[in-house]
Amino acid sequence: MEQRVSLVTLGVRDLGRARAFYEALGWKSGAAPDDDVVFFQAGGMIVALWGREQLAEDTGVEDSGGWGGITLAYNTRSPEEVDAVIAEASAAGGTILRPGAETFWGGYSGAFADPEGHAWEVAHNPHWTLAEDGSVSL
Amino acid sequence: MEQRVSLVTLGVRDLGRARAFYEALGWKSGAAPDDDVVFFQAGGMIVALWGREQLAEDTGVEDSGGWGGITLAYNTRSPEEVDAVIAEASAAGGTILRPGAETFWGGYSGAFADPEGHAWEVAHNPHWTLAEDGSVSL
Repeated sequence: MEQRVSLVTLGVRDLGRARAFYEALGWKSGAAPDDDVVFFQAGGMIVALWGREQLAEDTGVEDSGGWGGITLAYNTRSPEEVDAVIAEASAAGGTILRPGAETFWGGYSGAFADPEGHAWEVAHNPHWTLAEDGSVSL
Repeated sequence: MEQRVSLVTLGVRDLGRARAFYEALGWKSGAAPDDDVVFFQAGGMIVALWGREQLAEDTGVEDSGGWGGITLAYNTRSPEEVDAVIAEASAAGGTILRPGAETFWGGYSGAFADPEGHAWEVAHNPHWTLAEDGSVSL
């Protein structure tokens, strides 16, 4: 198994609301308005929104109903950009889980949940390299 | 917010076991043996293993304890490779959630859970482009 992730699928209860949230953040999908799955090209991988019940069934798991031990993160080019993204997510209908603040590991980060409860940390990490194209290297 | 993911952090109860699982699949990390977080460079993003309790606290969420609506996927270059990866994951201590089979969308996929219950679909999708470097395009 190569060291990579192709797709992250977020199970959603209200696809229209979830799609509108990510589109309000500026994300673009080629999905038709009534498609039951929405794919976003996200750098060299894909983020998908799909019905949470269907995803649980397709995956072959029981849904515990809340957060299940996975947090996504979005790295920024500056600490100020962390605050801007958190504000943007809040304005788009997300929930601020943690406002931007300095972290114990020497960076600056905050966190939000999308309208479905999926959690994103937004972080400026001065120890990692963020390339022009958005790819991140240790 | 640019259309990308920088990091996927998997919360784990037994870091040594989780790390050994991904290393058995061939993944390599520069983490020291006693580091409390393990980072894997995964294409243009990073996959991290970190204590599930710490991740929940750091994220600012309640942990529902099980699967929480997110499934990762790994795309392969052939249907046969799906079966090979599922077998490799099983041999490494993962659980087969669904053996490889043809899918309703015209591909071939199966799914496994890592020892912490984090779910991966393994899929051959003839409609998407998988580049030499492992990046996937719609």
